[in-house]
Amino acid sequence: MSHSTYKIKCVLNPHHIVDGDSCYDICIVGAGAAGLSAGIFAARRGYTVGIISTDYGGQTASTAEIENYPGCGKVEGPDLARAFFREAVGFGCSFISDRINGITRNGTIMLEGVQGQYRCRALIVATGKSPRRLGAAGEQEFFGHGVQYAGAFDPEPFRGCHVLVVGGGNSALDAAVRAALSASQVTLVHRRDQLSGERILQDRLHAAQNISVRLDTTVAAIEGGTRVESARVMDSYGAEQVISVGAVIVAVGFEMRSGWVCGAVSCTEDGRVRIDDSCHTSAEDIFAAGDCTTVPFQQIVISAGEGAKAALSATRYLDGKDGKRSIRTDWGYV
Amino acid sequence: MSHSTYKIKCVLNPHHIVDGDSCYDICIVGAGAAGLSAGIFAARRGYTVGIISTDYGGQTASTAEIENYPGCGKVEGPDLARAFFREAVGFGCSFISDRINGITRNGTIMLEGVQGQYRCRALIVATGKSPRRLGAAGEQEFFGHGVQYAGAFDPEPFRGCHVLVVGGGNSALDAAVRAALSASQVTLVHRRDQLSGERILQDRLHAAQNISVRLDTTVAAIEGGTRVESARVMDSYGAEQVISVGAVIVAVGFEMRSGWVCGAVSCTEDGRVRIDDSCHTSAEDIFAAGDCTTVPFQQIVISAGEGAKAALSATRYLDGKDGKRSIRTDWGYV
Repeated sequence: MSHSTYKIKCVLNPHHIVDGDSCYDICIVGAGAAGLSAGIFAARRGYTVGIISTDYGGQTASTAEIENYPGCGKVEGPDLARAFFREAVGFGCSFISDRINGITRNGTIMLEGVQGQYRCRALIVATGKSPRRLGAAGEQEFFGHGVQYAGAFDPEPFRGCHVLVVGGGNSALDAAVRAALSASQVTLVHRRDQLSGERILQDRLHAAQNISVRLDTTVAAIEGGTRVESARVMDSYGAEQVISVGAVIVAVGFEMRSGWVCGAVSCTEDGRVRIDDSCHTSAEDIFAAGDCTTVPFQQIVISAGEGAKAALSATRYLDGKDGKRSIRTDWGYV
Repeated sequence: MSHSTYKIKCVLNPHHIVDGDSCYDICIVGAGAAGLSAGIFAARRGYTVGIISTDYGGQTASTAEIENYPGCGKVEGPDLARAFFREAVGFGCSFISDRINGITRNGTIMLEGVQGQYRCRALIVATGKSPRRLGAAGEQEFFGHGVQYAGAFDPEPFRGCHVLVVGGGNSALDAAVRAALSASQVTLVHRRDQLSGERILQDRLHAAQNISVRLDTTVAAIEGGTRVESARVMDSYGAEQVISVGAVIVAVGFEMRSGWVCGAVSCTEDGRVRIDDSCHTSAEDIFAAGDCTTVPFQQIVISAGEGAKAALSATRYLDGKDGKRSIRTDWGYV
């Protein structure tokens, strides 16, 4: 199907999507809390929505247990992610399994994926982030052979092991506490002089009998044969020590996946998409939400709220294009 | 107990609250989605939190059925509100039943309530909004005798009645559809020439057999004996007509309850608290979240997300005051 066919269909039938057609009113790239929440709100307003991602759930899906998504109590991350997904599809969003690498313009927006091209009248970028690498020698070599990244880690292989956790934020603390349930011993190393995760997680860390904490310490190398056998750590005076460990969990933050859109909209130096308080980017037809943006905090409920904002802004933009009155939100203000 | 006693306790024991003491690290005024979410996030970071409100749940509690709080599917508003409340109290927030009328400063913040005074080191304003009055003759006289406000309305008294719904946004459309389930007939009047609620709600409105819509129409008066018997409506040409109705549901938006704080922080002309993207107000120790702020959209998940932001900003502020390293959020950025 040629571009011009897409374009005509899109312009003639902005609210109807023919099966197999790759033109949507709104494309959402990314299917974490922000993208799926955006899908729910955009589809409820009657627009055709295509959500493009290689998987769904983002960081929500890769968190074992979530206690701070208000209203849901204690919930398994994959279960919450499945609920988001089910609702987005239930309200009519199409899910397209692809990875977007580029964006061009030809009247409307054209997204370039690995599997195909997708045209839309408005775009919501919600690509989240992926775990940051430590950069230590051996980290890549032993990935999957003892090296794991926080969030998605599987505690089973740690049974009876000494586990090294690297990092000092919530995900590191959470990883250490969870690993300690099956590991014989957990050592948490953090390059700063204080942990920075939530008090409640610090309390749990200190309550565990088999977790020790080393501050002002970095990991120089991860070593072993076919699997991790030890880690070489260094204190702030430069003194090195080799610790025997069977596994290393890296929890030192995340990186952006939004490089492909940073030519089309204004981004920060570290690749986050700049947004205003309505989740509008520097382009009138591109919106963004969640961890890939300049939103100052990253939490599931914050990303879900930002996704809703991006969807309401995108539908308001399309309402204007279609000569409809701008939508009003539930309580009368926009 | 004198003010100086409160102050000393607060300064000496910022992280401990003696029973009966009215000093908290963080006071949250308002207990809707924003306030309760803020409570969850603030308490999890180890601070003492007092949530002050005459009731809890806000607009969430007064919405019959909610479909767009992502991850919760279809849920009764009061049930979702109860879940928020239970979690906030479960993480250690104190709930104080009072109405705040004023704020003074004497080193820390002193909140003036009807029942007492409450001192805190940081304040989160989350007072939401209350239904806007129509301003029609007879509206006040017949409140509770046939006149109800959308959100909290009880459809039972409408059984077999002709019900008039006033408004064109989501809450009016939702009220009309729900009233039509028990009413014999529903007439929705809206002063503009188009409805502005979500497409999905407009579709449901048009699908109902017993709902008629009158655009460009206002309500001049609500009339009757001991209860509502009729409404006088006026079209855009000034022509009046009397409609026999047994009940009137007013759904024309909401008003702010944050007047008491607008001397201490910058507010808009219509009484909304100005916030930045971290939910910080113009005062360094005052934060705000949800429908009482300049956040451009009002939805439960947006308010819950904003509450989380306000709590993270408030705890970061207190961390700084206490000489602790600023908190980092789950994924490493602040």
